[in-house]
Amino acid sequence: MRENARMADTPHVVIVGGGFAGLWATRALASASVRITLLDRGNHHLFQPLLYQVATAGLSAPDIAAPLRHILRGQRNATVLMGEAVAVDKAARAVRLANGTSLSYDTLMVCTGATHAYFGHDEWAPHAPGLKTLDDALAIRRRILTAFERAEAEPDPARRTAWLTFAVVGGGPTGVELAGTLAEIARHTLRKEFRNIDPGCARVMLLEAGPRVLATFPEELSAKAARSLARLGVDVRTGKPVSNIDAAGFVLGDERVDAHTVLWAAGVAASPLARTLDVPLDRAGRVAVAPDLTLPGHPEIFCAGDLATVQWGERTVPGVAPAAKQMGTYIADVIRARLFGRPAPPPFRYKDYGNLATIGRRAAVVDLHGFRFSGYFAWAFWLIAHVFFLIGFRNRVVVLLDWAMAYWTYQRNARIVLGREQK
Amino acid sequence: MRENARMADTPHVVIVGGGFAGLWATRALASASVRITLLDRGNHHLFQPLLYQVATAGLSAPDIAAPLRHILRGQRNATVLMGEAVAVDKAARAVRLANGTSLSYDTLMVCTGATHAYFGHDEWAPHAPGLKTLDDALAIRRRILTAFERAEAEPDPARRTAWLTFAVVGGGPTGVELAGTLAEIARHTLRKEFRNIDPGCARVMLLEAGPRVLATFPEELSAKAARSLARLGVDVRTGKPVSNIDAAGFVLGDERVDAHTVLWAAGVAASPLARTLDVPLDRAGRVAVAPDLTLPGHPEIFCAGDLATVQWGERTVPGVAPAAKQMGTYIADVIRARLFGRPAPPPFRYKDYGNLATIGRRAAVVDLHGFRFSGYFAWAFWLIAHVFFLIGFRNRVVVLLDWAMAYWTYQRNARIVLGREQK
Repeated sequence: MRENARMADTPHVVIVGGGFAGLWATRALASASVRITLLDRGNHHLFQPLLYQVATAGLSAPDIAAPLRHILRGQRNATVLMGEAVAVDKAARAVRLANGTSLSYDTLMVCTGATHAYFGHDEWAPHAPGLKTLDDALAIRRRILTAFERAEAEPDPARRTAWLTFAVVGGGPTGVELAGTLAEIARHTLRKEFRNIDPGCARVMLLEAGPRVLATFPEELSAKAARSLARLGVDVRTGKPVSNIDAAGFVLGDERVDAHTVLWAAGVAASPLARTLDVPLDRAGRVAVAPDLTLPGHPEIFCAGDLATVQWGERTVPGVAPAAKQMGTYIADVIRARLFGRPAPPPFRYKDYGNLATIGRRAAVVDLHGFRFSGYFAWAFWLIAHVFFLIGFRNRVVVLLDWAMAYWTYQRNARIVLGREQK
Repeated sequence: MRENARMADTPHVVIVGGGFAGLWATRALASASVRITLLDRGNHHLFQPLLYQVATAGLSAPDIAAPLRHILRGQRNATVLMGEAVAVDKAARAVRLANGTSLSYDTLMVCTGATHAYFGHDEWAPHAPGLKTLDDALAIRRRILTAFERAEAEPDPARRTAWLTFAVVGGGPTGVELAGTLAEIARHTLRKEFRNIDPGCARVMLLEAGPRVLATFPEELSAKAARSLARLGVDVRTGKPVSNIDAAGFVLGDERVDAHTVLWAAGVAASPLARTLDVPLDRAGRVAVAPDLTLPGHPEIFCAGDLATVQWGERTVPGVAPAAKQMGTYIADVIRARLFGRPAPPPFRYKDYGNLATIGRRAAVVDLHGFRFSGYFAWAFWLIAHVFFLIGFRNRVVVLLDWAMAYWTYQRNARIVLGREQK
């Protein structure tokens, strides 16, 4: 309140979502004479590219998250607010929150990201959890670790096999990472720890409806990734969609597979807040923004990150962290130009630095504008890039330490089941 | 099953509870010709003395826990089973599990510890959570961090004050640690991170019904601890019991205090499994065991740790980690003596190495058999002792790193709100 009173005459920029787009926009406006309110459901910025490591017990939740408030403590024009936006009222220029209050804005930036989408099969959701938040990651970790425990206690061989069958739906980077790490856990991490089962006999399946895994990569790297997965023992199935998922397993083509652990890495849809903007959305619920990332007809509203769809040649800008950061910085440029009465910057252009995905221990694929490589060096490159971009000095050190330990010992340090199993 | 078949003729020792007593007994039986089943609700051994650090966002949950299965991977006569014991059937010599199965034993050791007790006021439980498991710690962390967030968003001054009022009920070591750390978080960790509130104005109260905090310590150390707490800004109230707790606050004597965050560190009761043993229990639900830690009349059943009450001079053996470890090791000795037909060891005697409690940054009290000290050196002693006893090399390194960072920067690295707030 103190700050707000003093700065009541400066324009109020409300940024909804503290992901890469929102946080980068906030930081880029540090020296602008605006007052910023950064609203987020949680209290932290999440380094989403490493979320699968929390889900597979390699890292602790706080290793890949940092409190937004702490990151922005020195930025006097920014106020962080923990709360959930439920609707945008364009006429009143206000964001309505779940607690009944609302926030008025002069300029609004909506960047609340994406959530899982089950292609009209929401009934699959409880049986095939997706991976978007830290809570999702901890729930998946609990499922994976509990499955081995249940198998150890199960006398019936068929049921034991169902507990030892793991399927990942979706062959994009997250699916490949999850499947590769699951295979490693079964073959190496849990070796010699069970008495009634051999975790190495676990079956890990990666189910991709399209013709190949890592479809956004060149074909040669997809093939390399598929070979690396096979070497790790992953049963990769392409070209057939999953037609049903229930508590006991799934159906792939004509085949019914009994599996108690199915993870969803297939579809995403923009956060439901997009629907309250009352504009046409694409099939994934994303907002088709103008070339300056504003809402058509509403120059005071910007959309960015996974919530926005932006043309990029024949394709659209991919839903990756660098794209979200670039959008955030671009929007800050537009806002600053307006404040100074300068001409608007040229339309947003995504700068593609390349594409990388890891498969497991010493295996990754990297595509840097035609400079393609895979294997050990790709894996080292992936590791360095990810640690470099992690926020917070301590996090980088601890993540490196965890990885070094995991590399030498095959152990995973976050193998702790948290929360009670859902019945 | 493979192992069990091979070892079917060796006696089966079932140990229920993977805390200090159960784990130490299991390890001490490594070379005995028994087959051991260690049953636990969770998958991990928890280093409970540092649990308050997880609750106050100083450490991550996996920092203070290690999978039981991993600890015991090399011990071929031990099988770890994740499951919940619901009853002991002494006549059938079997433990019944929550999943409907049961485990037959030749020898049974029950060491399922303690849970919170609200002295007949179970309706206080949702408003004043206690601290016994990692899930408790994460729930308390969420409450503490969310309270500051709610205060920041609250325009009404009285309600804001209620969000900034924290009370800890119970002036034992856990209560003192929680209150001291809460004061540090408010005064130092969160400084400069809020715009509408000054976290330094938060009120932290420590409520002890008895005449002094740390009642199990000598009076001079209690007085020193109270002075250290006061210096940290904690409002210590002794001599009056809390007479009511609800969602909005609590009543202490004639005084009603509005506080949204009340933590319970006052009473414990033995785990409900003790009741199924069908023997007389003390006021706290603990089993009064024979001098050799067996159930009177049942030499094949042992109780240990917080579940057992054992005479120690005029007092009973305190519910601390060293006592539980000693009981575990002692029970293994008795079992081994029986296997070899040797005479039973002399009755259990608790070896008291001393008593220590930390209050906050550079403040602790230590009582080593009359050698009493406090302040900086006591704190350093506490720190070294706790890191030394932490299980797992990586945990020690990461905990030390977290503490070093926290010491120099006043930051706490696990300030991540996990899970949704309960309505």
